[in-house]
Amino acid sequence: MSSEQKPILYSYWRSSCSWRVRTALALKNIDYEYKTVDLLSEEAKNQLKTINPAGKVPAYVVNGQVISESLAIIEYLDETHPDVPLLPKDPVKRAHARAIAFLVTSGIQPLHNLKVLQLLNKKEAGFGGQFAKQFIVEGLTALEVLLKEHSGKYAIGETVTIADLAIPPLIYSANRFNLDLSAYPTVNRINETLAEIPAFIAAHPDNQPDTGLNA
Amino acid sequence: MSSEQKPILYSYWRSSCSWRVRTALALKNIDYEYKTVDLLSEEAKNQLKTINPAGKVPAYVVNGQVISESLAIIEYLDETHPDVPLLPKDPVKRAHARAIAFLVTSGIQPLHNLKVLQLLNKKEAGFGGQFAKQFIVEGLTALEVLLKEHSGKYAIGETVTIADLAIPPLIYSANRFNLDLSAYPTVNRINETLAEIPAFIAAHPDNQPDTGLNA
Repeated sequence: MSSEQKPILYSYWRSSCSWRVRTALALKNIDYEYKTVDLLSEEAKNQLKTINPAGKVPAYVVNGQVISESLAIIEYLDETHPDVPLLPKDPVKRAHARAIAFLVTSGIQPLHNLKVLQLLNKKEAGFGGQFAKQFIVEGLTALEVLLKEHSGKYAIGETVTIADLAIPPLIYSANRFNLDLSAYPTVNRINETLAEIPAFIAAHPDNQPDTGLNA
Repeated sequence: MSSEQKPILYSYWRSSCSWRVRTALALKNIDYEYKTVDLLSEEAKNQLKTINPAGKVPAYVVNGQVISESLAIIEYLDETHPDVPLLPKDPVKRAHARAIAFLVTSGIQPLHNLKVLQLLNKKEAGFGGQFAKQFIVEGLTALEVLLKEHSGKYAIGETVTIADLAIPPLIYSANRFNLDLSAYPTVNRINETLAEIPAFIAAHPDNQPDTGLNA
């Protein structure tokens, strides 16, 4: 592959959704160009809309085609680079893996993204955090029950799946809100196991080209 | 398949997420038992947690296995009943179809679900609607651009996909908030086309066993 054809990932170091995609790219050993989008700059976000109409990261550009939404990108990567599969083979287990990923990406994360927090804090100082914490706690409570039922070494059995990609960014957010995580031992155990995998280390916010931007 | 083995769908007539799954089931001609969950009853929601730990509809029970999260259920149905496919064959088009579905299910719908509205309206009467409308408008704006680029008769080309399943519930919500939808002609056109398909009619909130509950 020539360098002109290298895929591009529009990302922001602390974005949960970008982080999930970075992890999939690292697990699958896919080389890509990292383009940072400063999510605190209105100009950068408006420019991003010419790439992804929703004005959000991540956006993944491959052969001139833009793919948006973290889980759509991850499913695409899984279908086109099947050597390191991120979904189990059994249809019910695939469903459980996806359900855990969706629980985080549609049930928890949207309720504490930057824009939501900004809007709620404008209504009343501190309200954003209060709102976010309630949904993170509810989500973690459900996640703990699901992981107790389905996990092995990882979220679904003994290999890393799409479900695992959602866990480190969630715990990172929970820690930013200073939540007590002692009630979620299975979530914590899996998060600690993932933290030692080189691809998860490579994808961590602390290890990106734009680490620390607006910190 | 004996009647004992019929799958069960835990649903609520007006739930967007249940609606998407009902549409997939109808398109694929899958027979199932409909169990209503009264989302306004704390007792019913607590009981539901013994089925789906997140306490949400839909939950789909097949051979004693519970699958949660609407898009995980739909992907499962698509993998196990491939006769009426809900994803294109081309990987990039599959990604676009999923991205549109995710844009709605993680970027728009979570920000106007019942619980979010209740919490925000408790903070200040009317704030829930104001908050919801902002994210529906932003989401519809992005959706219109994506559909202009990718749609044919339906959201992605000339056959119904997972992307289409997300559109009618979104427009139904937008109408409940009395939003002016004239700026989204492509979304409207596709929504009107879908409204004439028998499976979409069968899945509509107006045509469920629990239609009108708490209306």
